[in-house]
Order: sequence, then C-alpha cells, then structure tokens
Amino acid sequence: MNRRLVAAFVGRALQLEFFILILPIAVSLFYGEDASSFLITMVFLAVIGFPLSSLEVKNKNLRTRDGFAAVALTWIAISLFGALPFYFSGYITSLTDSFFEAVSGFTTTGATILAAPELLPKGLLFWRALTQFIGGMGILVFMMTMTSSSASSVNLLKAESTGPTPSKLVPKIRETARILYIIYFGLSAVLLLLLICCGLAPFDAILTTMCTAGTGGFAAHSLGIGVYGSLVAEIIVSIFMFLFGINFTLYFYLLRRNFKEFHQDEELRLYVGLAGVAIVLIARDIYPLCGSISEALRLSSFQVSGVISTAGYATANYSEWPVLSKTILMLLTLGGSSAGSTGGGLKLIRVLIIGKSIRLEIDRLLHPRLVRTVRLQGRNVPEATVNGALMFLCVYALCFAFFCLVMALEGNDLQTVVTSTLAIISNVGPGLGSAGPLGTFAAFSPLAKITLSFGMFVSRLEFYPMLLLFTPGLWRNRI
Amino acid sequence: MNRRLVAAFVGRALQLEFFILILPIAVSLFYGEDASSFLITMVFLAVIGFPLSSLEVKNKNLRTRDGFAAVALTWIAISLFGALPFYFSGYITSLTDSFFEAVSGFTTTGATILAAPELLPKGLLFWRALTQFIGGMGILVFMMTMTSSSASSVNLLKAESTGPTPSKLVPKIRETARILYIIYFGLSAVLLLLLICCGLAPFDAILTTMCTAGTGGFAAHSLGIGVYGSLVAEIIVSIFMFLFGINFTLYFYLLRRNFKEFHQDEELRLYVGLAGVAIVLIARDIYPLCGSISEALRLSSFQVSGVISTAGYATANYSEWPVLSKTILMLLTLGGSSAGSTGGGLKLIRVLIIGKSIRLEIDRLLHPRLVRTVRLQGRNVPEATVNGALMFLCVYALCFAFFCLVMALEGNDLQTVVTSTLAIISNVGPGLGSAGPLGTFAAFSPLAKITLSFGMFVSRLEFYPMLLLFTPGLWRNRI
Repeated sequence: MNRRLVAAFVGRALQLEFFILILPIAVSLFYGEDASSFLITMVFLAVIGFPLSSLEVKNKNLRTRDGFAAVALTWIAISLFGALPFYFSGYITSLTDSFFEAVSGFTTTGATILAAPELLPKGLLFWRALTQFIGGMGILVFMMTMTSSSASSVNLLKAESTGPTPSKLVPKIRETARILYIIYFGLSAVLLLLLICCGLAPFDAILTTMCTAGTGGFAAHSLGIGVYGSLVAEIIVSIFMFLFGINFTLYFYLLRRNFKEFHQDEELRLYVGLAGVAIVLIARDIYPLCGSISEALRLSSFQVSGVISTAGYATANYSEWPVLSKTILMLLTLGGSSAGSTGGGLKLIRVLIIGKSIRLEIDRLLHPRLVRTVRLQGRNVPEATVNGALMFLCVYALCFAFFCLVMALEGNDLQTVVTSTLAIISNVGPGLGSAGPLGTFAAFSPLAKITLSFGMFVSRLEFYPMLLLFTPGLWRNRI
Repeated sequence: MNRRLVAAFVGRALQLEFFILILPIAVSLFYGEDASSFLITMVFLAVIGFPLSSLEVKNKNLRTRDGFAAVALTWIAISLFGALPFYFSGYITSLTDSFFEAVSGFTTTGATILAAPELLPKGLLFWRALTQFIGGMGILVFMMTMTSSSASSVNLLKAESTGPTPSKLVPKIRETARILYIIYFGLSAVLLLLLICCGLAPFDAILTTMCTAGTGGFAAHSLGIGVYGSLVAEIIVSIFMFLFGINFTLYFYLLRRNFKEFHQDEELRLYVGLAGVAIVLIARDIYPLCGSISEALRLSSFQVSGVISTAGYATANYSEWPVLSKTILMLLTLGGSSAGSTGGGLKLIRVLIIGKSIRLEIDRLLHPRLVRTVRLQGRNVPEATVNGALMFLCVYALCFAFFCLVMALEGNDLQTVVTSTLAIISNVGPGLGSAGPLGTFAAFSPLAKITLSFGMFVSRLEFYPMLLLFTPGLWRNRI
C-alpha cells in the first residue's frame, strides 16, 4: 500500500468533513441550540485531518489496492469522527452506540439504536440525516467532483460506487461524477419542494429528503414518517424511494432524450416488474388485515418500495404481517436495488447476469459446442463481469453465514437473527422481530454492534475494499 | 434428445425396480403379511418397463444431454412406481402423499408425511428404508455395475453422482462404480453387525442400517431411533452417519493403504473441523437444558452428525434449542456433506473452492498481475470447476428463493418456511418449527408436496438434470 498517498486521501476526506460540519452548526445556531459538540469534533478533525492531508506524497500513482484501501479507511475514519457529535452532546451515552449510528448513517442502512429520535436536538437530527445524504453517493466521489485531482481516480470510483462496473457517462471520470451528483441534487430538490407543498415543515421536509435520497431511511420520529399526517407526502416518499433505487445513469439518458436506452434497460424492467408483482401479492395477502383494497395497496406499495430500494422507511410493522408477505419482503431485501443507485443489496443487474449465466449453462448441456456468452441489453457481457457477479453472490452468502452466527450469539429468536442480518448486509435497516420496523438495535451487545457496523461497511462498499484490509500483504508492502 | 435411448434406459431402470421389489415381498411373506400391493406394482412395472427396455435403439450414442435427461426421467419414474405400494396397501390414502414419501426415500431426504410410521406393516417399512439405500448411491450407477453396457456411461455418472467432478478411481468407469458399491455395502455390513451386537432386533437393525447408509434418515418409529433404548447403538449410528457423509474415494485410498491422500484431503479436514467446532459450541449452548456435560455432548454430537451428513436422524427436538444452536444447525444444513458421499447439500468441497477463489480475488487486488489459480490438495483446480462451484451456489440460492415462496403460500411461520426449505433442498429432511424433527410434512397442501418433491429431485441430482427437463429444446430435438 502506498501509505502516504492513502493517508493523504483520508486526511482530505476528514478536511471535507470538517467543512461539512458547518451545516449542522448553522442549524443548531438557527434553532438556538448548543453547538459545542460539533465544535469539539471540528477541533479533532482539524488536528488530525489537516496534517494528514498536507502529507508530502512522492509517488502519486494510485493503484487498485491503494484506491480500495483509501476508500475503506476513509469510510471508517469519517464514521469514527462523525460519531463524535452524538457522543459529545451526551444524547447517545456510549461511544459504540454513537459509532453504530454514524456507520448506519453513512452506509445509508438506517438501522438505529435510538428508540425516540425525536428527543435529539435539531442540529443532531440534521447531522444524522446528512450522513445518509453524503453516504448515498459516496464521499470520495464527492471529493473528486470538488478537487482537481484526477489522474487515477477510476480506482476510487470502482471501489465506492455500486454495481458490477461503474459506467462512464462521459470520457472524463470527474465529469461523470459531477453529472451523477447533479442528478442526485436535482431529484432531491424536486422531492423537497413536493414535500413542502404537501404541508411538511421545511425542517421535516429537509430531513425526509436527505434520508430518502440516500435510501437511508432514518426516521426523525419513533412513529416514522406517518407522523406528518399527510397521505400525499407518504405517497411521494414511496415514489421517490423507488426512484432513488434506479441506476442514475438512466436519468442521464432521459435528460439526453435517449428514451430507447431507458426503455430497454433490463435491470429497470426487472426492478419495476418485481416491485409490481410484490405489491400485488402482498396487498392480496394483507387485505384481511386492512379492510379495504386501497389501504392494502397503500401499505403494500410503501413497504415494497422501502425494501426494494433498501431505504427501509416503513409505515407498517410488517413483523406482524402474514408469512407470505414477510417472505417476499425478505427476498426483496436479498435482491436489493439497481447498480449505480444509492441503494444497497445484491443489485438486480447481478441477479440478471446470474440468472442468464445459469440459463446459458443449461443450454450448454444441450449444445456442448455453444460459443454464446451472456448478453444484456443486446451486448455481450465480459466473462470477468459474469464471474464477478457469481462470486459476489457467494461472498454475500458467506458473509451472511458469518454475521448470522454473530447475531445468534445475542440469543434472539431465529427470525430476528436471519432477517436483521439480511437487513444489515443489504443496507436496508430494519428486519423483522425485535429488530423490526418498530424495534431498535439498542439491546444488542457492544461486540455485536461493532460487528454489525463492520457488516454495514462491508456491504456498502461491496465487500472487497473492507475484506482487503484483512490481508496482511496490504500492510506489509510500503509501495 | 435421443428419445429411444433415453426411454430404453428408463425401461431398464423400471425392470431393475421390478426385481428389487422381490425383497420387500419376501419380507412381507416372512412376517405373514399381505404382499398384494407389491405384486400389483410389479404388474405395472412389467407392463411398462419391459417393453420400454426392449425398444430397438439405432443410435447408441449417449451424449451429455441424453445422460442428464435419462437420469432425471429415471428418478421420476422409479419414484412414481415406488409410490404405488404405499398407495395400494391403503396405508397412505393419497397418491400425492405416497409420491412424496417415495421421492423423499429415493432422494435420501427423509422428510415424511407419516406421523406414526410404526403403524405400517413390516414389508412397507422395509421398502421405505430400501428406497433410501438405493437412492444413496444412485440407481443408474447401480444399473451400470450390473449390466455390461459401458460405452458413454460417464455422462450418467456425471449426472447422478454428487460433487463437482466424479473421480475415476480406476480407468474404467464401470469398475469405479463397482468399487464404490463394494465400499458402500462393506460399510453397511459393518454397521449392521454392530447394531445387532448392541441388541437391536435384526429387522430394526436392517432398517436403521439402510437409512443411515443412504444418509436418508427415515425413522421406523415416531419416537425416532431413541426407541431402541440402546445408548451404544445411538453412538454407533451417530458415527456411521458421519462416515457415510465422507467422500467414498477416500475409503478406497484407505483400502489401498494410501494414507497420505486420506490424511491430506482438505474437504475431510473441513468436514471434521466444522463438525468438531459445531459439537462443542452447541454442547456449551444446550448445557443448561441438559444438566450434564456428557448428556450435552451426546445430544449435540448426534444432531450435528445428522445434519452435516444430511441424514437427518434426530434424538432431540432441536426446534426447542437456543437460537445459537439452531443457527449453527441451519448453516450446517446449507453446507452439507462431502462430494462423492451419499449426502446432500452444497458439498463442502464447493465451499472450499468458493472460499479459496474469493481469497484469490482479494489477492488479485493486491497483485493485479497474479497468475495463480485456485489450488486444492496441492493441485490446480481447473477454471471450469471453480466457475461450476460458484454457479452451483448461485443456483442453490435462486432455488432457495423459489421454494421459500412456495412454502410461504402454505402460511406457516417464517422459521418453518426458511428452515424446511433449506432441509428439503439439502436433502436433510427435518427443518425447525412445525416441520421439525418431531413434525411431519403431512399438513402441507398437495401442490406444496409436489413442489417439494420436485425440490428434493432437483437437489439430489444437483440441479442441472432436472432443470434441463424444462428446456423446450430438449424435447424438440429428436436426435
């Protein structure tokens, strides 16, 4: 690992976090709250971030391993420092809990240890939502759009963005990142305006927008977003969660009036199709509990949109739903959103590639001399991408087994163990049972919280950057 | 598909089943029972099997697709006819239930719809156990050892034996199959003798031996094998379940005094290691329920051996155990036994290959120009085998999702849905909850029973032969 270069990257991210903290401070001051917890955090960030970022780097070549290590360490660092305001404010009394909350924010998981988030001051609530907004698109990609460092930054994008291969919209990586951020901000602005039109207080609208855009799903109230009492707002959030789970590249095509590319996208079709089937099946399943078809459809579509986009907002305690609905939601958690969105999970494009390669394998039994490859949108998918998708599901399964064991040590019931592990490693947030939509992760032991925090990182960065940190070779090699 | 050749194969298998039925008839007559249900079945077998087997086959070339189709159709056919004695006897009143029981037998799953198997006459109990003994090694492989047809039979072995690649012990395939069967019979004979020495009645000893050898786990009594009241017998069964979950090739090496190959086998090491760790962890977990360490170890080791070998015998209702124990048993179900054994599941050699290829992928991030491949026992694993293992887990995961949905339609609790699906697609048998060690599958709907029967086939034949049947191209093509 090129230690100096990686350290400088981490330093620059901390520097950026330093400046970002000005936003929650402004909120605190606006509402006349005590901003000292943010100010102390800024001191820490300044003392550590600024010297690191100004490290003299001789060798500026950022190889794959350096990019991956930089991304992994940056995410750990910004979460560690991002936890400090919670801790210093005294509203979260343990450092482990603060860290868990910050990690859940930056990774846009949305699992919380707070039973009543409404007790937090507005500054902290804002910071908590802001972590999800930043985490959604990735902090290093954001840094790239701000600074002029470019050179080998494709290795950063590769490690931080989601899906099998990051798509370059325009020849320059930095320009691509900028376009994606513009789409992200644009969609968020539309959502914000709509929510304010629905009668939400501007502060509530801002929080909801940030947590929806990042597909994070932190609720600012223990009663969830139903507390705002606006049915239209609920429908709007439901639609926007779904929209933020779509590959942003497709919005770029839309803006360019390239409707064909949008229309023919197989991942989008699968995403819409799965959501549609799930909504209908669940609505039918919960109809006896709801009494009316419209109520059943309303609850079903909100929950499906929350889970398939991995935002994890909920307007119903689906732990109490019939088993078919729970099974469908569990399987959607597994599949997750689209590549290149802010969502988590396996990504449906991988499910598509895996499904097609199994189909191809069976066809090869019929025609042993078949030379076809897996095709997506009429293009050949490179062998390496296919293998990557297969291996991704395998890594996912092994990590699932590992985290299940850790969760089982806590002595919950099996439903809680399996579904909350799935919810964590898909960055959805709530599972079923005691870690369900109405529950919190507060009761877990510190060891479990740290392990789950690690699990959220592992999944948000799609495994390899975090797993690489455990390779002794990474640390041994200085260059 | 070469229809005539495949039909002739199916016919020959039915012919074989015709002759095998003489055994349960002998048992029936010996105990003075009515053997008419077997005799009627023999008539059906004769009317359909003999004409098919004597079909004139012009093109004797058995390609991959023909081998796979022959295996899939043979297994369906022998199960259909194998279900008839249950149905004609009147002891199982529905044809669906009879079919489920027969499939569960031949696939060595051991899931049952009988709440009280002890009510069956001895002839039927014998037939039920015999299906597991036959299914363990595979009926077509058995046919190969009996007949002189040889030529392209490697395609049959490929489709019916378990694990990534069937190992040829000796240059001739048929000779290999014969050696494996000799080991199978030899081990079974030792088990039978030991059980009789423990004081089991010969009939009970024979049933237990057949169900243990096939890693099937049909109990002849609703109280399981604990009913024989012999602690030593319980320990012996526990050890032999474990032994039948080991790759039979290794016993061949032992017989040849090639201890190095046996000792260095990485799959065996993982199998022993996982079982050891699981036994200790579970014993520690259930100690408060048992009162003594020896009792905890006894229950733990029997259950672990039952699940890891996928035999599925149980001496405790582990549905009631603490969550850590349940999670460990669930994950062992997933992993399954060894390749080339009579057990089911993913097979640990695939877990090894997958783990190593993930490790290699991470190493490649460190050293992009790495040209190493996955190595097992000091040998390079071919790229195709690695891909096959990755894809296998993916097929497994997709099938799991599909069967979960079907099980959820039945409206059980989520624990029952997830664990019984796992138990079915790993050929273990009992899951947790209402389909647990003390429960049965009787309450499921006919549709679910047929789907699950299909699931047991899919998993016993390792997916591809059964999935191939759903390819229209297979049926369209006459040659």
